[in-house]
Amino acid sequence: MNGAESLVHSLLGAGVEVCFSNPGTSEMHFVAALDRVPGMRCVLGLQENIVTGAADGYYRMAGKPAVTLLHCAPGLANGLANLHNARRARSGIVNCVGDQATYHRQYDAPLTGDTEGFARGVSHWVRTASRAEDVGAEGVQAVQAAMTYPGQIATMILPSDTCWNPGGVVAAPLPVPEVPKADPHAIRAVAGVLREKKNVLILLGGAPAQTEAAQQLAWNIAQKTGATVMAETSTPRMARGQGRMQLERVPYPAAQAIEKLKWVEHIILVGSKGPIGFFAYPNMPSKHYPETAQLHMLARPEQDAEAALAALADELGAGKVAFADPGRRPEAVRGAPSPEGLARTVAALMPEGAIVVDESVSYGRGFFPETYAAPQHDWLQITGGAIGCGFPLATGAAIGGGGRRVIALQADGSGMYTVQALWTQAREKLPVTTIVLSNRKYQILLGEYTGVGANPGPTAMNMLDLGNPDIGWVKLAEGMGVPAAQATSLDQVADLLSQSLNNSGPFLIELVI
Amino acid sequence: MNGAESLVHSLLGAGVEVCFSNPGTSEMHFVAALDRVPGMRCVLGLQENIVTGAADGYYRMAGKPAVTLLHCAPGLANGLANLHNARRARSGIVNCVGDQATYHRQYDAPLTGDTEGFARGVSHWVRTASRAEDVGAEGVQAVQAAMTYPGQIATMILPSDTCWNPGGVVAAPLPVPEVPKADPHAIRAVAGVLREKKNVLILLGGAPAQTEAAQQLAWNIAQKTGATVMAETSTPRMARGQGRMQLERVPYPAAQAIEKLKWVEHIILVGSKGPIGFFAYPNMPSKHYPETAQLHMLARPEQDAEAALAALADELGAGKVAFADPGRRPEAVRGAPSPEGLARTVAALMPEGAIVVDESVSYGRGFFPETYAAPQHDWLQITGGAIGCGFPLATGAAIGGGGRRVIALQADGSGMYTVQALWTQAREKLPVTTIVLSNRKYQILLGEYTGVGANPGPTAMNMLDLGNPDIGWVKLAEGMGVPAAQATSLDQVADLLSQSLNNSGPFLIELVI
Repeated sequence: MNGAESLVHSLLGAGVEVCFSNPGTSEMHFVAALDRVPGMRCVLGLQENIVTGAADGYYRMAGKPAVTLLHCAPGLANGLANLHNARRARSGIVNCVGDQATYHRQYDAPLTGDTEGFARGVSHWVRTASRAEDVGAEGVQAVQAAMTYPGQIATMILPSDTCWNPGGVVAAPLPVPEVPKADPHAIRAVAGVLREKKNVLILLGGAPAQTEAAQQLAWNIAQKTGATVMAETSTPRMARGQGRMQLERVPYPAAQAIEKLKWVEHIILVGSKGPIGFFAYPNMPSKHYPETAQLHMLARPEQDAEAALAALADELGAGKVAFADPGRRPEAVRGAPSPEGLARTVAALMPEGAIVVDESVSYGRGFFPETYAAPQHDWLQITGGAIGCGFPLATGAAIGGGGRRVIALQADGSGMYTVQALWTQAREKLPVTTIVLSNRKYQILLGEYTGVGANPGPTAMNMLDLGNPDIGWVKLAEGMGVPAAQATSLDQVADLLSQSLNNSGPFLIELVI
Repeated sequence: MNGAESLVHSLLGAGVEVCFSNPGTSEMHFVAALDRVPGMRCVLGLQENIVTGAADGYYRMAGKPAVTLLHCAPGLANGLANLHNARRARSGIVNCVGDQATYHRQYDAPLTGDTEGFARGVSHWVRTASRAEDVGAEGVQAVQAAMTYPGQIATMILPSDTCWNPGGVVAAPLPVPEVPKADPHAIRAVAGVLREKKNVLILLGGAPAQTEAAQQLAWNIAQKTGATVMAETSTPRMARGQGRMQLERVPYPAAQAIEKLKWVEHIILVGSKGPIGFFAYPNMPSKHYPETAQLHMLARPEQDAEAALAALADELGAGKVAFADPGRRPEAVRGAPSPEGLARTVAALMPEGAIVVDESVSYGRGFFPETYAAPQHDWLQITGGAIGCGFPLATGAAIGGGGRRVIALQADGSGMYTVQALWTQAREKLPVTTIVLSNRKYQILLGEYTGVGANPGPTAMNMLDLGNPDIGWVKLAEGMGVPAAQATSLDQVADLLSQSLNNSGPFLIELVI
């Protein structure tokens, strides 16, 4: 058995079922091993950022890591941006990066690069294999690292001879580490704050914003103590819709966030950190909460926040309270596109159990309130700000979501970074309906530019405008095998969205806004 | 004057004229400065690997660096693969990477990453600015680094407050360092080898393969001494066509290269290194020249190879000898596509002074002999093996080429990595005719897979096949504003190519092979 075969056996044994793949010459023995050892679903992406973004979306829905197969340093580099997003989402991923043979590296062949150096900036765990005998064992270590709560990026670098040499040894899966409990003293201290202080914000981030159970505990505590519950600006996944919490996010724009949080005197951090700006701005504070407010850590992202919330609720005697009623499900809106109208239309038509993938950037900031009364769904966002997350995330979420319909709300500028993912959606016949918000400019940057204090002149507009020529999204989608149509009104969106939900494969709607 | 304005003034003063750009929020003050300070041509790319690949192509044709404008660590990461190729091409590029404000970095905002870490693997020079007062001076240092022969990657990281703070100081351009001369002892030693030894190969790489003058000197020396001249497998740019040398490359496939070089006893390295495999293979040597052959360094890539060749020719008394006659210009070929037929058709129709950009991968290995008798042209290749170079390289070469027609020979699999460059070609109305070689598979990998010793099964084919669905290149191009048509015969290629040469803007031909 060669090293690659031992690695595939070991990964399968550790429960890895999907390989998002963009292989090259140095990975051919791994590809051959995947061919010989049955059991892995292999999904090709036409560029590496598709592969890594799909692995992120897969983890967010399946709750287990996929493996990626990448080619040497530049191939890994192509996938770093979505690994950055995945790291911020705390998704678990096992990257297998093929590389020059151990004995060939000295010759500095053209495709030789600093694979380990590129990996370090996005990985919690990095290992370069040196012998075929070890790669099975290193594979299950990587899976263990990836499954360490709430999820980690583990990168194995595989010189090609560690794959083709004989002597591979299949390794038994390693136990998933227990999730560390929060400090009981911290729980009691937070209980004291909630009992004694006013103007307290309970801020949920990551895993505790994700599940209905954790939201319910936070809600119970807030109802008992008069605190307010919010979520961080970006969370990897959130359970939403009828019968669930109307969980508001801290706004993205600095001025809005500061205004929203100006009343706060205490912040209880539950898998979150104190709200700070995505960027700094002149004459604007980095911290978006009052300078005098105090932070209190209930559970770090690596700790069991749900258990901490349960213990806190016990400590406070906070029993179950029904969530606020969001009212009736919205109806589809007619007429000219607006953010609220689009959100209500999506809420009106989405199926029960939909997965919403949101890289809507500026247009989507008002989507949340209009979708509280939608059927139950999960909402996935870009977490690390590296745009080009949406199409790949939708692709992976569809594979990890076990047949649930994905509705992707996709800004046009961001979409162009990773448009190649549409081809994978077509090949795999994935249930993804994408609505591209085609405003033909980098709207967020035009807003930022105005913040600089000037109107953009022709040179600036040349870098902020996406018209001239307009991007033909219908042709792009059709060129990659995804049927598509253009809409200029919400009536058309509703018709096209409804049609797409009755079909099994992907569809793209270009909404001209 | 703020830091950004001082930087733009300093870059312009140092002769930088073009900015390939993909800005984000942290670069808005740089964008505003480009707007206020006239003189820089700003070219938007829709993904960062377009931006960096275009800067590479620009340098190869213009012989001077462009600046790139990139956004934070993940934005730089998206452009690393083509910076890798540019580093292997020894192209000069000044990267300006915006980043979190100095005082904001401590908060680890979502888009914070290891910008300097990512930069190091591809850069000869890296600097993170800390004060607005310094960025002008650091800018001209970066230009000086980029212009250090034969060209270097210089990366400036610009925390946003170093751009918006006042106190910017315009810096005067720094002198371009003199090109170091080769060691005179080495020149005499090489002359001795050429006089006394048989079976000598003069191997040109990089700059000495580029110019007619250097080729002429090498040819004269070879004619005088009985040596053979070849070029490395990949060179960044080569002067070719009627009246120039028929300069053969070392073949890419290991077995062919080893066969081709088996007679060699001495290799004179002229800006090159001893031929080694792009990758290692089991039971195949890393070195592609005989174990017993000796290497003799005439000029390192950083040394003035042309002067060294001139001195060597003087030493040997090797006067000018006319190049071999390549015969008549080929005529366009009719009928079914073949690599040789396509090459002859391109040779038949290309205008004088064309720029050929070659990322044809497996299909293009035989293109060289068929184009020796074409009109004079420059031939640009992918140098670092990070596929996805072709479309961006063609884009930048068109801008750096001053109106010369670019003919891009583009493999389909590689093309999909950076297909977004077509939009920039349309926006800038660039004279680029692309011929996509649409074989609907990763042909090079199928060849490599067979080398593993097996026929690919369904799982492997799922990672090596690009059909299912077929990529519709005409729709993709049209979706980005580039007119396009499909060809299934060389007759159609000839017609479409001729038509495109009569128009001023870009055109794409999908050749189904």
